[in-house]
Amino acid sequence: MRLSCSLVLGLVPALASCGAAGPRPEPVANSPDSVEESAVLVPAPAWAADVQTLVGRASEGARTYELVEGLTDAAGPRLAGSAGDPLAVAWGTAAMQRLGFANVRAEPVTVRAWVRGEERVEVLAPVPHRLAAAALGGSIGTPPGGLDGELVRVTSLEALRALSPELARGRIVFVDQRMARAQDGHGYGETVPVRGQSASIAAGLGAIAVIIRSVGTDATRFAHTGAMRYADGAPQIPAAAVSNADADVLGRWLERGETVRLHLELGAHDGGEAQSANVIGEIPGTDRAEEIVLLGAHLDSWDLGRGAVDDGAGCAIVMEAGRWIREASTRPRRTVRVVLFANEENGLAGARAYAAAHHEEPHALGIEADFGDGRAWALRTPDLADRPDPAAISARWDPLARLLAPMGVVWQPDEPHGGADLGPMHAPPPEGAAMPVVDVVQDGTRYFDLHHTANDVLTEVDRASLDHAMRAVLAVAYAASLDVE
Amino acid sequence: MRLSCSLVLGLVPALASCGAAGPRPEPVANSPDSVEESAVLVPAPAWAADVQTLVGRASEGARTYELVEGLTDAAGPRLAGSAGDPLAVAWGTAAMQRLGFANVRAEPVTVRAWVRGEERVEVLAPVPHRLAAAALGGSIGTPPGGLDGELVRVTSLEALRALSPELARGRIVFVDQRMARAQDGHGYGETVPVRGQSASIAAGLGAIAVIIRSVGTDATRFAHTGAMRYADGAPQIPAAAVSNADADVLGRWLERGETVRLHLELGAHDGGEAQSANVIGEIPGTDRAEEIVLLGAHLDSWDLGRGAVDDGAGCAIVMEAGRWIREASTRPRRTVRVVLFANEENGLAGARAYAAAHHEEPHALGIEADFGDGRAWALRTPDLADRPDPAAISARWDPLARLLAPMGVVWQPDEPHGGADLGPMHAPPPEGAAMPVVDVVQDGTRYFDLHHTANDVLTEVDRASLDHAMRAVLAVAYAASLDVE
Repeated sequence: MRLSCSLVLGLVPALASCGAAGPRPEPVANSPDSVEESAVLVPAPAWAADVQTLVGRASEGARTYELVEGLTDAAGPRLAGSAGDPLAVAWGTAAMQRLGFANVRAEPVTVRAWVRGEERVEVLAPVPHRLAAAALGGSIGTPPGGLDGELVRVTSLEALRALSPELARGRIVFVDQRMARAQDGHGYGETVPVRGQSASIAAGLGAIAVIIRSVGTDATRFAHTGAMRYADGAPQIPAAAVSNADADVLGRWLERGETVRLHLELGAHDGGEAQSANVIGEIPGTDRAEEIVLLGAHLDSWDLGRGAVDDGAGCAIVMEAGRWIREASTRPRRTVRVVLFANEENGLAGARAYAAAHHEEPHALGIEADFGDGRAWALRTPDLADRPDPAAISARWDPLARLLAPMGVVWQPDEPHGGADLGPMHAPPPEGAAMPVVDVVQDGTRYFDLHHTANDVLTEVDRASLDHAMRAVLAVAYAASLDVE
Repeated sequence: MRLSCSLVLGLVPALASCGAAGPRPEPVANSPDSVEESAVLVPAPAWAADVQTLVGRASEGARTYELVEGLTDAAGPRLAGSAGDPLAVAWGTAAMQRLGFANVRAEPVTVRAWVRGEERVEVLAPVPHRLAAAALGGSIGTPPGGLDGELVRVTSLEALRALSPELARGRIVFVDQRMARAQDGHGYGETVPVRGQSASIAAGLGAIAVIIRSVGTDATRFAHTGAMRYADGAPQIPAAAVSNADADVLGRWLERGETVRLHLELGAHDGGEAQSANVIGEIPGTDRAEEIVLLGAHLDSWDLGRGAVDDGAGCAIVMEAGRWIREASTRPRRTVRVVLFANEENGLAGARAYAAAHHEEPHALGIEADFGDGRAWALRTPDLADRPDPAAISARWDPLARLLAPMGVVWQPDEPHGGADLGPMHAPPPEGAAMPVVDVVQDGTRYFDLHHTANDVLTEVDRASLDHAMRAVLAVAYAASLDVE
């Protein structure tokens, strides 16, 4: 049916200004402009009213925050293969059943465990004291008793590659590159290669260990861990991150010409194979039940914190969105499948296992939530990047953009990425299943203050912005389950 | 000389509105009211113009922040008797000489060292993982291999005293009392007895250890350490603080009826006697040189952070105030003596040593800076509390209040405390020397987020508010050095 704006206004406070965005060259913000336009009646597809109604209902009584609390209290830190991993799987399975999902199951995933063990990074000179530091995921440990070395500092991977082996040999290399703060989190992409690659490059120059400035935007003494990888065949040396506040002090000492000596003791080691699982639940569709709308987040977390924003928030967003779709008066035509992936942080075994088991099932669309508790601010849809002409913007996505504009979500003409857990399904054949993806982009301004730190805990989660992101994901997912044009 | 307001306005931006506060029943804020009054010319004592001029000069070019950086980079953590302690003494002595202080010396102080050692507090059930925790200063360690116990929770010292020995015996007592956030920091006084007394009370009930919610206002995973004391003759059990974020989780589990078991391994132990020092420098007076205006702060810090706000900020405030007095065109009549006290955090040996050595010298006034980097917002002067009648407010302090009012510093009719390091000199005879004190009260709203944590580092120091507090202390100290009425 067609919906009159007055009816919409009556029904859905969260989306009261209907048709806020028509096809337009620029992304649509919820600006005075768009509010003006919103007075104009724009024909919407039949499913739009159902989406508006459901998102409006979800603007009150959402339990997203309570799901983050439930997971973090029940499983705490849950690195793949750790004690918290099976607790998280048990919580996810029970929670999905309690929320009324169908076909709830835990599909086994074999993961490779990494164990931090005890660790200690100390300054020996010029000022003996302990640093706030954390081994990087996948790092080897130090020899028994640890190792001592003088620091040599570079401020980028390029500078590291250009470092003379004479300066690196026998020393501990300090890669001191800062991450920029940005709403879209682009600083992470610029800096994360330092975390992943520094160890093997430094080892090739004869260094005995590497420390990096934390890949994070805070200036505190929380160290940011995260995955690193040794290059095939390269010598392996221990790798750790120091907090940004500690990196500042090391940097000032070295710039003043002080000789800085560190003692590193890292108990990091491989933990062997372990069993984990992808936790899956569904809201069955009606006439297109065989077509899947996939909502993904990851159930595992790093070991230092409790994984509240990374990715308890994402798990809560997709589970709560699914719960609202189940409560919709108009049932989804496609099946909405919520997947809590195993082992995203340190191996992606869950994403690969899902693709191996399900790549032959038709997936209409994939949406991933793995960017914390920030508000949704952008929608990225396929087939825009290659169609710069405004007039040619796909009618396929325009009604969805109209639904999100009043929430302050702009339509961005960038290609959606999908996210790490959707990668194997999104990738083109023969590797992947070419599943289309849409990005509901969240505000990452604060996300990298907490990301992979001991302070990734419930007290840092913002209920209002978390619920906002949930409603945006709900709108996209429910629309995708109804819109079979 | 008498100073006309127009002249003042020309000279000193920081104190442009002169005579903002006349004698009045209520404390004076820098409000529209007081601005109105500031148009009125009020006679000021001869020294007022010199103070206004100097504070005006100090409103540009202050190096307070750089002194905090210097101390924290040169000494880092500097708990009495630790490796950083002598580094701090060396830095303080050299810095005072560089700043042009006279009679710079380090007066030896014998301190009792306490050593944290390695520590680990883990949840065994319901969710195995490590907590953010820190032994309290003065605590004994756990037996080799640590101890395990079930948690029993109380939310106040009163509830702890009332706890049945049947519930405490063989268990770990968790004292879960929250500290309130307040500009005047009164929540600390309400909560700190939990830190000091819980261990002996719980031990008397048969508990095997005690953990407390951190005495701090943050909700993060930084644990707040601080001194505790065992009651004479009471059995001694280990005591640690858990971060507020961890206390929240423990509290939720226990309120849901979960059985919570912890493993505590605390390497804390006595470190024996060690040598430290009070670092002292002076700006000699002229005709009243034998009379001392004492500016005190403490040079030591807790071991987890770098003592930037506690009390690097205070050391920098009193040192920088002294430097400006040295640069004043009108020399102080009394001698301004800056003392960086040893061992405030864990024994007060420095304060006692100073009093023992100097109690016979005439001390005109004492001012202590030990409340971080917050703006100055109140002045507390002697002999107001016992003179409630506004008309009777001492003419002694009125001119000083007028100088501070335009900076937003109100005159509070409360008795000044002086602070821990001034205690032995401020105390009445025969214990003390009855030295008068004035409080320059700083804004403590954020102070207890960082206080005694690993995050007490330079990156958390606010340059502008730190300089503001320095100028207020400068005004009081310089006035006291000139005003010999």
